[in-house]
Amino acid sequence: MTDYAVSHIGIAVKDLSEAIARYSLITGDDNPGVTQVDSQKAKVAIFKASSALGGPHGASIELVAPTSSGSPVARFLEKRGEGLHHVCLYVEDIEQKLAELKAAGVRLIDETPRSGAEGNKIAFVHPSGSSGVLIELEEMPK
Amino acid sequence: MTDYAVSHIGIAVKDLSEAIARYSLITGDDNPGVTQVDSQKAKVAIFKASSALGGPHGASIELVAPTSSGSPVARFLEKRGEGLHHVCLYVEDIEQKLAELKAAGVRLIDETPRSGAEGNKIAFVHPSGSSGVLIELEEMPK
Repeated sequence: MTDYAVSHIGIAVKDLSEAIARYSLITGDDNPGVTQVDSQKAKVAIFKASSALGGPHGASIELVAPTSSGSPVARFLEKRGEGLHHVCLYVEDIEQKLAELKAAGVRLIDETPRSGAEGNKIAFVHPSGSSGVLIELEEMPK
Repeated sequence: MTDYAVSHIGIAVKDLSEAIARYSLITGDDNPGVTQVDSQKAKVAIFKASSALGGPHGASIELVAPTSSGSPVARFLEKRGEGLHHVCLYVEDIEQKLAELKAAGVRLIDETPRSGAEGNKIAFVHPSGSSGVLIELEEMPK
């Protein structure tokens, strides 16, 4: 049974201010929330979807810029340049989903959930298990 | 004012059946709709989000595989390999959005909308105008 929804799409960018200006135009949101994610050595700008178009849980766009040269996003930018970085999917029960994926032989980065920026349980699936896409799973806050 | 929501995320894959098996596991949807998009020389498998998690307009995941070696997706796969390919955003009024973007100097692939696979008005923004991301705009069906 389908048990996912898209939480957000992460886009790796070099210059956060410049990218915010572009995505403000595209999304119509000229005041995105900007937050520092110390564990990822990154700054993130979050463009929330219109509830008229996307409903109460519409997927967001997150621009991610590195704050340190050795960070995962900095390495991504060096290798691939700016562009789509990851997709985060809401799941009902993250432990159950990880167990299912592991049993099916899908390679996981996190076999047990860890705590995301907002305290939600999150885990990453290795891109080799999902056609080259870095997938973050996130348990929807109750 | 925010006037977007994510319609779908397009993932370029080489082997559609193999990718469907993986994404069935990840999304919980083991019976995605598969459709041929002749104009793009591609086959697309659509995994719709759970309405419990994503609401009535939750963003979908679309796996896109080429049906011909000269197609845009085939060229993408040759250059970059499998992975995230494009993001499609719903907008309220596509003509107005394209006019705004053009006036702001954003490079567009389509300056006027064309007809998408399901008859909706769509247009593409050039990746140079959106931090390396190929963005499709789609007017939400009335």
